[in-house]
Amino acid sequence: MPQGEETLRQRRRRETSRHIAETGLRLFEQQGYDQTTMQAVAEASGVAPRTLFHYFETKDRILRYWLAGEFAGELRSAMLEQPANSAPLVAARTALRELVAQHETPESLAVDRVLNSTPALRASKQATFIDWEDALNEALAERYGTQFDAEQLQAVAMLSIGALRLALERRRGEPESSVPLDRQLAAVFEQVSSAVGRLT
Amino acid sequence: MPQGEETLRQRRRRETSRHIAETGLRLFEQQGYDQTTMQAVAEASGVAPRTLFHYFETKDRILRYWLAGEFAGELRSAMLEQPANSAPLVAARTALRELVAQHETPESLAVDRVLNSTPALRASKQATFIDWEDALNEALAERYGTQFDAEQLQAVAMLSIGALRLALERRRGEPESSVPLDRQLAAVFEQVSSAVGRLT
Repeated sequence: MPQGEETLRQRRRRETSRHIAETGLRLFEQQGYDQTTMQAVAEASGVAPRTLFHYFETKDRILRYWLAGEFAGELRSAMLEQPANSAPLVAARTALRELVAQHETPESLAVDRVLNSTPALRASKQATFIDWEDALNEALAERYGTQFDAEQLQAVAMLSIGALRLALERRRGEPESSVPLDRQLAAVFEQVSSAVGRLT
Repeated sequence: MPQGEETLRQRRRRETSRHIAETGLRLFEQQGYDQTTMQAVAEASGVAPRTLFHYFETKDRILRYWLAGEFAGELRSAMLEQPANSAPLVAARTALRELVAQHETPESLAVDRVLNSTPALRASKQATFIDWEDALNEALAERYGTQFDAEQLQAVAMLSIGALRLALERRRGEPESSVPLDRQLAAVFEQVSSAVGRLT
């Protein structure tokens, strides 16, 4: 099979995945996640149920299409690009602010709302934050492992991703026109800093 | 019905609950959570399946017996007992250290191991940390709501419960004879403080 044809097929596959994932996300938002059937996703996407199941076996997979993203991988790249003489928490804060500024799209906001619409999805979302924390922890170890001990870096990862989680929560509570996510994130870091400044 | 008899019945009910919950927890640890059937819990507890289902409908309920505890309520009481002039993070740290010193029992360590034995349980456990964070946040608002703004207190709750989570993780990785949980927790707070001290 010629290489060009293979690439075309891959592109069509990617476009179909994205089309179905966009349709599914829109239905989850409009009708509720639990109320949306796979049948409804197939109909609204204009594909046969068989085709849908070929692309996404379950509704959860449709959500995961949006969640998985490359966030963990991009977080690592962004961390490794920070100046060598930055303190770990400064580097993590800068990397996260850069990433969220790039990642705040209408889809990411919709995914966030759907993920907060049922207790089961909220629980699964918490697991995602733990994955991100692990990814940041590994990147920190790679970058600063010779200068800082592992437990110190683990604390940096915990509070950086915790700050991101709070920023996302606050962003969700606000109308779309208000403070962007990277500014919310900077504010949480300031609050953390102020609280810790009072530790004796 | 005389009051005394009612109390006796309640006490028997409480003892049976605890006996079944202890047996279930032991089986989860020994055989694995997914491999343990409700039938096996009934047999090992020496009760009829009907009786078991009367007390605990599902395995999840047995785990929740241990999780729910009164941790959230006790956290609130412990927070409200802290001196009025303590900074919020200092009060939260002290309250958590007091609580974990009381709560570190062989059962709490076993529950923690079972909760980390499957991905689904780990996800459900993350939701528990969010519940604790909410409980601490409410207690902080009750205690310090007039002096500090809500977002500042939310950051305190995030990093306090994040510190507790890391302390529990480290405790799980250590042999039973080593550093107790409240000392692990104090160490995480020191690491947070050291990391934030380098923020510019």
